[in-house]
Amino acid sequence: MHKALITSVPFGQKDRKPIDILDSLSVEYLVNPIGRKLNEQELLSLIKEFSILIAGTEPITKQVIENAPNLKLISRIGIGLDNVDLVTARDYGIQVSYTPDAPAPAVSELTIGLMISAMRSIHQANLNMHQGNWNRFFGRSFEDLTIGIIGLGRIGKRVLNHLDGFQCKEILLNDLIHDQQIISSNKIRWVDKEEIYRNSDLISLHIPLNKKTHNLISSEEISIMKDRVMLVNTSRGGIINEADLYNNLKDGKIASAAIDVFEEEPYKGNLSSLDNCIITSHMGSMTEDCRARMEIEATQEAARFIKGEKLELVVPKDEYEDLG
Amino acid sequence: MHKALITSVPFGQKDRKPIDILDSLSVEYLVNPIGRKLNEQELLSLIKEFSILIAGTEPITKQVIENAPNLKLISRIGIGLDNVDLVTARDYGIQVSYTPDAPAPAVSELTIGLMISAMRSIHQANLNMHQGNWNRFFGRSFEDLTIGIIGLGRIGKRVLNHLDGFQCKEILLNDLIHDQQIISSNKIRWVDKEEIYRNSDLISLHIPLNKKTHNLISSEEISIMKDRVMLVNTSRGGIINEADLYNNLKDGKIASAAIDVFEEEPYKGNLSSLDNCIITSHMGSMTEDCRARMEIEATQEAARFIKGEKLELVVPKDEYEDLG
Repeated sequence: MHKALITSVPFGQKDRKPIDILDSLSVEYLVNPIGRKLNEQELLSLIKEFSILIAGTEPITKQVIENAPNLKLISRIGIGLDNVDLVTARDYGIQVSYTPDAPAPAVSELTIGLMISAMRSIHQANLNMHQGNWNRFFGRSFEDLTIGIIGLGRIGKRVLNHLDGFQCKEILLNDLIHDQQIISSNKIRWVDKEEIYRNSDLISLHIPLNKKTHNLISSEEISIMKDRVMLVNTSRGGIINEADLYNNLKDGKIASAAIDVFEEEPYKGNLSSLDNCIITSHMGSMTEDCRARMEIEATQEAARFIKGEKLELVVPKDEYEDLG
Repeated sequence: MHKALITSVPFGQKDRKPIDILDSLSVEYLVNPIGRKLNEQELLSLIKEFSILIAGTEPITKQVIENAPNLKLISRIGIGLDNVDLVTARDYGIQVSYTPDAPAPAVSELTIGLMISAMRSIHQANLNMHQGNWNRFFGRSFEDLTIGIIGLGRIGKRVLNHLDGFQCKEILLNDLIHDQQIISSNKIRWVDKEEIYRNSDLISLHIPLNKKTHNLISSEEISIMKDRVMLVNTSRGGIINEADLYNNLKDGKIASAAIDVFEEEPYKGNLSSLDNCIITSHMGSMTEDCRARMEIEATQEAARFIKGEKLELVVPKDEYEDLG
């Protein structure tokens, strides 16, 4: 009989359906007994007996995989694969699936909310008011801003669609492939990354974390940005160098930032000491409906595997190639 | 020679042009010496010698007007007229102008930011993170929500346009006149207020404050709303009864609220004790470009008056009729 370990937290909380699916199968399962994201050692000590891992963002490293002799399927709840050593998994004959479509609406909507919070200091005004201080903060309007979007995949495209409902001064796009079909007005242009850095008032990141994107934005890139630039990151921690972000927020080169993802999570770093940095707890996909959809899709994929059916959400080959 | 009192705070801070306009005219002027919104007595004690008032939201009451023997023009920086006793001003032959178009983009953008903050608990996550606590909050997605918009004037229509870029489950509209031309999809409908109250997951207000709208939303209206409803108010304080809002937020009938405007400002009430209430300091129009535009337009109107030119921003008659 298969044994499934569910590491993602929370699981089955807002919608019981994933639990019901597991209960209906001939599978033994264990839901994360620690109640938060596992570190490598914790995962290592749990994984040995399991054939299926329904996974969150914990590190599924070479060492973990080498200590998982029974593992046959990793079914990721979500889209990011930076926490999975895909090549080692392949070498050990472990299939990897994910849920690439489910999180996009929740992440793109949070991104717009974070942009406006950063533009208007909503978080700072709210904090002041809760402390009894009436301070009015000057903000920026979309019509006054050039927005730079790096990464126009599922989420970046949705962010662009949301921005269609506003009247941005200009929108600059960058991705590996410049798809002309997503250009809906003469205020939107494909440019290289350097032009995004030089000319944007607000830059939002929607790219995967891999060797090429690690520390993509560090002091050097920030130094060529406009004074008072704003940065939003709802993609993955590690893409913006956190120490450089801290220094540039502190000295005001970066006016404000909104960061949902961190190099190490749960985050314990010094960005929390800066009022002009909005920090949230990797909540991009944390809406009730999105989260339920992700958990159900990942659990249904595990169910297919258990019943010997064809998998539908297998990670495509090009995700493996990005790792080169 | 004309004498102008500028009461609005801030003034000329982000863009010096309004000051430059005043300096170029044959006018003596005084900028609010107290540095915050004046109360009735403060305004009363300052107003006597002035012929022009470039006004914020301070109370320009009957008593104030009766003690302003030289006053000939009130030029409001902004759109709301609830602070001006229009009928008394008319009786005393005082012209009233305003800047109805300038604030709309800033207010409508803040509204979307506040909606998403309320939907996703951005403010609560940020506060937790700044205190070193990694708590992940479940939120709601637009595709899962019925949005109710009360008031489809300059600002409400812009909010509707912004929402075009998202995929709301349904949008319910209410205003005195049901303009069919703004219906762009079969998910948007004109309904009566009661249907908005009964069926919306999030309600946003974009109406003026007058006798008919004072306490429009009190316990009775809230009681027929869906459990876990969210409320956003960037229009005027006094439209939602603050005591009833507090009680319903506290007992969870209202899941969250985002309130930028208050019955008395600066606000000092007990909403500040509730984590599920985002409160900001009447910042709707507080973007650099919007604020500058409003101040410039109101000052240019005063300049026309001083030079004996035709006024261009006189408050139309129907604004006086709303007061009946």
